[in-house]
Amino acid sequence: MIVHLKKETPIEIVQECTEELSAFSFSQNDLFVLVNSFKERTINDKFENYVVEKFLFDSDIQLASKKYQGSREFSVDEIEVGKKDTTLVITGPCSVESKGQIDQCAAFVKSQDIKVLRAGCFKPRTSPYTFQGMGIKGLKLLAQVRDQYGLKIISEIRDASHADAVIDHVDIIQIGAKAMYDHGILNKCAKTNKPVLLKRGFGTTLQEFVQAAEFILSGGNGKVILCERGIRTFETKTRFTLDLCGVAWLKEHVNLPIFLDPSHAMGYAYGVPDLTRACVAMGVDGLLLETHPNPKEALSDASQQLDFNEFSNLLQSIKPVARAVGTKII
Amino acid sequence: MIVHLKKETPIEIVQECTEELSAFSFSQNDLFVLVNSFKERTINDKFENYVVEKFLFDSDIQLASKKYQGSREFSVDEIEVGKKDTTLVITGPCSVESKGQIDQCAAFVKSQDIKVLRAGCFKPRTSPYTFQGMGIKGLKLLAQVRDQYGLKIISEIRDASHADAVIDHVDIIQIGAKAMYDHGILNKCAKTNKPVLLKRGFGTTLQEFVQAAEFILSGGNGKVILCERGIRTFETKTRFTLDLCGVAWLKEHVNLPIFLDPSHAMGYAYGVPDLTRACVAMGVDGLLLETHPNPKEALSDASQQLDFNEFSNLLQSIKPVARAVGTKII
Amino acid sequence: MIVHLKKETPIEIVQECTEELSAFSFSQNDLFVLVNSFKERTINDKFENYVVEKFLFDSDIQLASKKYQGSREFSVDEIEVGKKDTTLVITGPCSVESKGQIDQCAAFVKSQDIKVLRAGCFKPRTSPYTFQGMGIKGLKLLAQVRDQYGLKIISEIRDASHADAVIDHVDIIQIGAKAMYDHGILNKCAKTNKPVLLKRGFGTTLQEFVQAAEFILSGGNGKVILCERGIRTFETKTRFTLDLCGVAWLKEHVNLPIFLDPSHAMGYAYGVPDLTRACVAMGVDGLLLETHPNPKEALSDASQQLDFNEFSNLLQSIKPVARAVGTKII
Amino acid sequence: MIVHLKKETPIEIVQECTEELSAFSFSQNDLFVLVNSFKERTINDKFENYVVEKFLFDSDIQLASKKYQGSREFSVDEIEVGKKDTTLVITGPCSVESKGQIDQCAAFVKSQDIKVLRAGCFKPRTSPYTFQGMGIKGLKLLAQVRDQYGLKIISEIRDASHADAVIDHVDIIQIGAKAMYDHGILNKCAKTNKPVLLKRGFGTTLQEFVQAAEFILSGGNGKVILCERGIRTFETKTRFTLDLCGVAWLKEHVNLPIFLDPSHAMGYAYGVPDLTRACVAMGVDGLLLETHPNPKEALSDASQQLDFNEFSNLLQSIKPVARAVGTKII
Repeated sequence: MIVHLKKETPIEIVQECTEELSAFSFSQNDLFVLVNSFKERTINDKFENYVVEKFLFDSDIQLASKKYQGSREFSVDEIEVGKKDTTLVITGPCSVESKGQIDQCAAFVKSQDIKVLRAGCFKPRTSPYTFQGMGIKGLKLLAQVRDQYGLKIISEIRDASHADAVIDHVDIIQIGAKAMYDHGILNKCAKTNKPVLLKRGFGTTLQEFVQAAEFILSGGNGKVILCERGIRTFETKTRFTLDLCGVAWLKEHVNLPIFLDPSHAMGYAYGVPDLTRACVAMGVDGLLLETHPNPKEALSDASQQLDFNEFSNLLQSIKPVARAVGTKII
Repeated sequence: MIVHLKKETPIEIVQECTEELSAFSFSQNDLFVLVNSFKERTINDKFENYVVEKFLFDSDIQLASKKYQGSREFSVDEIEVGKKDTTLVITGPCSVESKGQIDQCAAFVKSQDIKVLRAGCFKPRTSPYTFQGMGIKGLKLLAQVRDQYGLKIISEIRDASHADAVIDHVDIIQIGAKAMYDHGILNKCAKTNKPVLLKRGFGTTLQEFVQAAEFILSGGNGKVILCERGIRTFETKTRFTLDLCGVAWLKEHVNLPIFLDPSHAMGYAYGVPDLTRACVAMGVDGLLLETHPNPKEALSDASQQLDFNEFSNLLQSIKPVARAVGTKII
Repeated sequence: MIVHLKKETPIEIVQECTEELSAFSFSQNDLFVLVNSFKERTINDKFENYVVEKFLFDSDIQLASKKYQGSREFSVDEIEVGKKDTTLVITGPCSVESKGQIDQCAAFVKSQDIKVLRAGCFKPRTSPYTFQGMGIKGLKLLAQVRDQYGLKIISEIRDASHADAVIDHVDIIQIGAKAMYDHGILNKCAKTNKPVLLKRGFGTTLQEFVQAAEFILSGGNGKVILCERGIRTFETKTRFTLDLCGVAWLKEHVNLPIFLDPSHAMGYAYGVPDLTRACVAMGVDGLLLETHPNPKEALSDASQQLDFNEFSNLLQSIKPVARAVGTKII
Repeated sequence: MIVHLKKETPIEIVQECTEELSAFSFSQNDLFVLVNSFKERTINDKFENYVVEKFLFDSDIQLASKKYQGSREFSVDEIEVGKKDTTLVITGPCSVESKGQIDQCAAFVKSQDIKVLRAGCFKPRTSPYTFQGMGIKGLKLLAQVRDQYGLKIISEIRDASHADAVIDHVDIIQIGAKAMYDHGILNKCAKTNKPVLLKRGFGTTLQEFVQAAEFILSGGNGKVILCERGIRTFETKTRFTLDLCGVAWLKEHVNLPIFLDPSHAMGYAYGVPDLTRACVAMGVDGLLLETHPNPKEALSDASQQLDFNEFSNLLQSIKPVARAVGTKII
């Protein structure tokens, strides 16, 4: 249940009401928002005068629900996210590997008129014996190229132990598929004003995925992007299975911007262009694509990264698709 | 292993060689094709003079492999299937329900310049207590509207007991997801000249899917269309999960035309338009879409069929997407 | 909805009532059973005097439901199936391969005091280029060893085209995982008196599995055994995933005997003994196990069949487990 | 590749060799263990005299592999884990809810001769609007009952932000299914001497599961228990699907003790006894079972917890099953 209290409600009343309803509360625009786990609950008479509106739901998808509010939009400086007629392309290498490599990537990204650079510094590898990312050093290199090239940067928090460092350095915080249930990270992201791109776990239902976003929303940070990146199924010819039926469901029921990551879903560069065009034709809000100056020598995800030439061709090819469905690649 | 023998090879030699190699054989264009299960096998000296070429494979995807030959194309009368620059739209109701209903559908399909009408007569329902299809009566109604409206028709074989009846009546034979492993059906389809649209089972790997097509191809019928219609995963908010990563794999490795059925994958009409546009942007060879004059009263698949108005709008919307990726809706 | 009509109801009344309720009907013991797809439906006054009882259900699991009747038991001659305190072991090779091989197997099975011999004659292989079974010849070899050794035999129908031949020759009819939705087969099995072992499809939900059994039950054949043999999941180190949680659900909700096939689930002989002991400890009604005189040279399922020595050891090891949970291996 | 260096190797040589091989290293018993990601790598001549043995592997399952060493055993004070002939039962409520509740549970557990009490304090809930656990307060209550009743305790780390607190308070550290990839947690557990029970993620392959254990092993902590608790499949009648085929694979290939958690897999108390007996018959090293004084009022996992009476009955019933397979419940 969500309850809106008037902006002029005395703060003690807000607190008292929050407690009585076992709710989370935060202020937003012209009101206070209280949200709890109850399908419905009577509100004490003494609070009644302050109540603007009540919303009831049949599951714990509440703040993210289209029944609560229409599509959420926000901006990262001048870059608009979630607007009906734009699709934001984010690209860059899987990992920051060296100063030279990330510099090369940033220069390329800039040359393509792409505004946001992605690159991981804390890699959630499945084996301890492979490259684990450059860590803080990588974050600093990222911050340097951001300033040098006038880009925004997005990078991933792997676990709660370095959450603050990532939050401090990036423009958009990424929570990876394997960290999606991590309360330590979710709670930190709830208390910042920076946008958060939350990736769906590969074994995660849509219900759980959106509920993870509710951890951030209920803390008062409304800037959450949902990113579908492939789920794990019985099919092993491809790395994962991009769930576009799930995206159709999200578009219908959830008010958050939706991004897609076809690179991780497919796992092989040859399929990325076709899948990317499919995503654009779905009318999604953004794309995450992996590019690398020399994919064969990449320290992680070598098989799925596009080289610069492939990326340029892909970028050109999606522009007419975007126009065909009434959006614009930014 | 596939072996090509010269056209002028005496038929006894073909038979002898076929036997010695434990192979299937059939004649095709200018040669005889022999195919067996061995990765590699020495060919007796006495056959050597007749051998044109040998092809070796690392799995039982052989005749369907891009390593064997480029994309296969064929035509249903004047309708071309598998050409790089066309996407064939097939539509119609889930089931033939009555003369009136199928007549209404055929008239609508015709009015939209669609050339192929789909409708099921033998429904593979999961419960015995629901509508099981009109059977032979339905096939006859379909044949009537075909003649009346100048359409081609496609309908599904549910099991081997009525395979001949369906093969006789239709222009394109459909093998449904639940019948995909049925040797009784596959063997019959191998011995006809009519094109066969083979749907992927919802629990079927890509390897098994293409191997099922090999049953038909190795019998000498080269006109097989593969149709992806959603696989079963842990996600239940949608009926199935359309596997577009799998489609990317098929496009890269398999020489058969690829169709997509977003209606069955999604299970809900609201998601069908977005998914259909995604499929078109993948550059697939064809689409299977369900339309019904009054979806709410449909005797099967009520939730996923589009009404005529929704279908018309969708059809208009996919034309610019097709153009954007260099194909044309036919 | 299931309706019971008195035994003495005139047959015309039964027919009339069946039609009015759009039901299936058959006679059973002391009454007529009518079953249809409606959650609830008013019964015409004129039939009311004949009605003994009505049963309402929330899904199309009706005749198989524990809400309808307790556990079903029946016998194959003197062999009892479905009794609380017995676990029936069925074994034999994956396929009949030759007279010598099946004779050797039958002699072994007999020597172990096993009463039912399994062996396939129509193999539902996924590739056309591998051994497809001996067909009718194999059935005849099976019938011979049955008579010679005094065994019962079970063999599989692959598709509707040879259903009658299998039904004629065997004591227990097997419907394989890939044929589970085949109406041609289900309908034939509904009209025989022989017991039917129905295997769960590897992509099949429990709901669909039991509904497939309803096709047979609603035709009047109450002798249906459900057999879990592994479902397809993302895990590929083993061939399938034996769903014992599903078995626990079936035991709680469904009145049919439950058998388990750990050989096919695991796909590797090394895991079969441990899994078989787990199945016995679940208190299931029967087991299907694959044994072969020389697994390495088997024409199908080579990796998962036990040799005779391994089988003997396993058989000895499950007897104390059976005793520990209050059943007896027969 | 794993390399063993002699105990008397000078520490500088160990360090130098570790660096040259890009390896992890730790001392163990009578030698130094170095492990890296290379399938094979030449060792510099100057280190050769110190090398005792080399082990090569075909994947990153190395320290956990049966090819490296036989089954690992260790003890928690006097409780032995991983011995061939014992099965350790751990039980307790899903969550610590209050002093009264955990006291009641501890008293019950003690009365059943169970030696290890489980209870969660940091609950990885999927919704922010439900009970999230008592946190540090809960850990303190657990520590109290441990001392009072002479029990060992196991509790779960949810995320890296409270890893130290949990490690300090418990006798066995639990890493939950959702935290299984969390490097922050894994790295902390690698640097303690306490045993770690690592649960398999519900979307995690066996390969990834064991690789997560390698993070701990390669840090020098060899006391890792693997716990299977159900994977996510298309079947939704039960909460998850207990993967006993996977357990058979682990027993064959991995040297770590294996525990099973049938409560979480099933999700419903009615199926837990049958599944538990199945697990015991597999000969596993231990069991995790949920019990609660009043399951209906439990603040988490209400549907799957056994009441005390059900647990006592279950415990009695598994003892003869254990005997039948040559183990003993401790």
